[in-house]
Amino acid sequence: MTNNELMKEDLKHIFHPCSQMKDYEKLPLIPIKKGKGSYIQDFDGNEYLDCISSWWVNIFGHSNDYINQKINEQIQDLEHVIFAGFTHKPAIDLAKRLVALTPEPLQKIFFADNGSSAIEIALKMAFQYFKNKGESRPLFVSLENSYHGETMGALAVSDSGMYKEIYEDILIKAIHAKTPSLHDEDVAIDDMRRVLSENKGKVSSVVIEPLIQCAGSMKMYDASYMKKLRALCDEFGVFLIADEIAVGFGRSGTMFAIEQADICPDFLCLSKGITGGYMPLSVVMFSNDIYDAFYCEYNEGKSFLDSHSYTGNTIACAVANAVLDIFENENIIEKNQEKIKLINEQTQKFKTLKNVQEVRQRGMVCAIELQGYESNRRINLEIFQEALKKGVYIRPLGNVVYFMPPYCFTNEQLTKMIDVTYEIVKSKL
Amino acid sequence: MTNNELMKEDLKHIFHPCSQMKDYEKLPLIPIKKGKGSYIQDFDGNEYLDCISSWWVNIFGHSNDYINQKINEQIQDLEHVIFAGFTHKPAIDLAKRLVALTPEPLQKIFFADNGSSAIEIALKMAFQYFKNKGESRPLFVSLENSYHGETMGALAVSDSGMYKEIYEDILIKAIHAKTPSLHDEDVAIDDMRRVLSENKGKVSSVVIEPLIQCAGSMKMYDASYMKKLRALCDEFGVFLIADEIAVGFGRSGTMFAIEQADICPDFLCLSKGITGGYMPLSVVMFSNDIYDAFYCEYNEGKSFLDSHSYTGNTIACAVANAVLDIFENENIIEKNQEKIKLINEQTQKFKTLKNVQEVRQRGMVCAIELQGYESNRRINLEIFQEALKKGVYIRPLGNVVYFMPPYCFTNEQLTKMIDVTYEIVKSKL
Repeated sequence: MTNNELMKEDLKHIFHPCSQMKDYEKLPLIPIKKGKGSYIQDFDGNEYLDCISSWWVNIFGHSNDYINQKINEQIQDLEHVIFAGFTHKPAIDLAKRLVALTPEPLQKIFFADNGSSAIEIALKMAFQYFKNKGESRPLFVSLENSYHGETMGALAVSDSGMYKEIYEDILIKAIHAKTPSLHDEDVAIDDMRRVLSENKGKVSSVVIEPLIQCAGSMKMYDASYMKKLRALCDEFGVFLIADEIAVGFGRSGTMFAIEQADICPDFLCLSKGITGGYMPLSVVMFSNDIYDAFYCEYNEGKSFLDSHSYTGNTIACAVANAVLDIFENENIIEKNQEKIKLINEQTQKFKTLKNVQEVRQRGMVCAIELQGYESNRRINLEIFQEALKKGVYIRPLGNVVYFMPPYCFTNEQLTKMIDVTYEIVKSKL
Repeated sequence: MTNNELMKEDLKHIFHPCSQMKDYEKLPLIPIKKGKGSYIQDFDGNEYLDCISSWWVNIFGHSNDYINQKINEQIQDLEHVIFAGFTHKPAIDLAKRLVALTPEPLQKIFFADNGSSAIEIALKMAFQYFKNKGESRPLFVSLENSYHGETMGALAVSDSGMYKEIYEDILIKAIHAKTPSLHDEDVAIDDMRRVLSENKGKVSSVVIEPLIQCAGSMKMYDASYMKKLRALCDEFGVFLIADEIAVGFGRSGTMFAIEQADICPDFLCLSKGITGGYMPLSVVMFSNDIYDAFYCEYNEGKSFLDSHSYTGNTIACAVANAVLDIFENENIIEKNQEKIKLINEQTQKFKTLKNVQEVRQRGMVCAIELQGYESNRRINLEIFQEALKKGVYIRPLGNVVYFMPPYCFTNEQLTKMIDVTYEIVKSKL
């Protein structure tokens, strides 16, 4: 079958995520037949470098032999089992390894399926922690320009413009403090102090995306803000939730972005890269102190009774263990430093272009913010289409072109990604 | 390793779903090493008949050879690709097949990862449909005793007692009409009429679990209610969302429970059995009319921009296609009729027991409601533990013992499940 034939079949029935379906009248959907390593291939035989890791999830390439082998082994033994009252070795191993990789106070772990569900769990647990101690603290605080997911709780703490506005009438209210990605760090911290001060005793948690507000146009800020925020949360006695769903597992340069601030959040939410781009899985990590607030006789009614059918899914845990194997065996975080440097050096040339406002980078994420286009010009689609013709798949967010490649990209592939994009951006002057 | 060793490792780090963790002091967690067909096996070598399909998800047994083979084939080609702007054959095939299996008006499909996320999508779409037409209808109506998930939107429309009460301060308000599972059908319909009438123009959708309120103690009602509710929703111009996350894929006796009422909901939510118990996947199906309300020029801002990273996951879609293959190739729905009859006949004897209040059944789900126990006696745990010792895994909900076996159970296995349970229930007189 051809791309066109499959696209027609697809459009009869499928409503794609994050899409105005009418766009596909002009912008053909691309049916992917094969993925291998850094490349995806369509049904017409075209190959594309997957420079955004298939929406920030893939880290060791498509159809990775080692992960495939581990899936194959796992499904021969056990594909899944109920996780209430029962357990399995892949989950136990994964929990142990994640605890070892994260700051010492994060000793406990709760499993879920996707990032949104992880955020909901952290928010609910933070709220219930205080409720179990006799306080109701119904307010959540997040940052301007933040994105934490699509389910109604996760959306309530997001400040994501069109993704959220339409739903205001069916969302609980959350407070957005000034973000250090758009304001001076001290202005942002002062605003957070004001918010926490004005709502003393009503806020259970502050939720942030450490270092990079990915869906928020890849806006970035410094680790020093996180240090100050941690101190502020301690001062006001509210929980800090670190949403590392997008930035975890090496994207920020370190395994987790919180390492760069040398802080420990009260809740750490992880997903996306956790399965190397294979399948949905998410976790929420927290301390023994938080765990203990839910630990009592059943009849006291203080437990955290959240569950999804596939919580702790065996295959997904086996895949996550394979991902951690690769991190260890191939010394990925260290090896990435060279790639980070290459990206940094080779993207400097964008700064010379008049239509480039800023080039910013944190680890394996690099964003080039463009300027000078009229607001109704969909420059992102123009760049996307032209790059695609050259075998490079990027997916600019509005006027922000960004790179978030899998870690298996070779230096040559990184250079191709950057150079092809540079020529296109330059042609848009 | 032994059960006990693994349990200790587990309890250091894992907070299990739907659990008061303190219970595990007395009620050991069971680490499962292998699953094959109807059985799961622990690390001490004990085997258990999985009579609740590992939380209602498994339908063709554990580690199914055919599904395993299909996973293996899929991961050689493509494990996952971004589903915005791109697509793949497993998703296209799955969409086409689901459309063919469901009522004709349900032509469109939106993918997500778990049941809660599917409910959130249906609620948001229902709300936005009216918003796109200039109306704000922020109210959702569901039934008493309902359960629709754990994320804040799904929880808001649930009426699940302790699962929900603690979070009231962080949930939007939803209205629960009388349920036909606890009231006379006409009383329930009259109450729904009252609710829709009192909130005219403010309600976007009514959400129900067709035929069985599974988490709500397996309370059941008749298809005739659904027919009347469909008419009522039409009369008031509100959407009907059918949450077949638990009852879909043959549980109710037919492929989907809505078939028994010969109605078409406006939204159909599916999950659990869709992947045969292998991994998270959910879908929301709806009509072209609903789809069209979101179809316009991008700048009009009317699209439905929901997304999860793993939306339309390739492996999960391949697994779902394998599941549908088995349904077709092995004529499962027809073959299940014999099992349904056997369950019906063999559970009649429970009715003779004084501690049995009711035996009820819809298709492959049979519930035995007990009576006469003091409210603080955890009779469910007693029965669970005794059955387990006899190699039968059941998981009573409060004082309701139920069976929801995978469809691969043989007649002998069904009989064992029923007889072992019968002897235990009888001993509790």
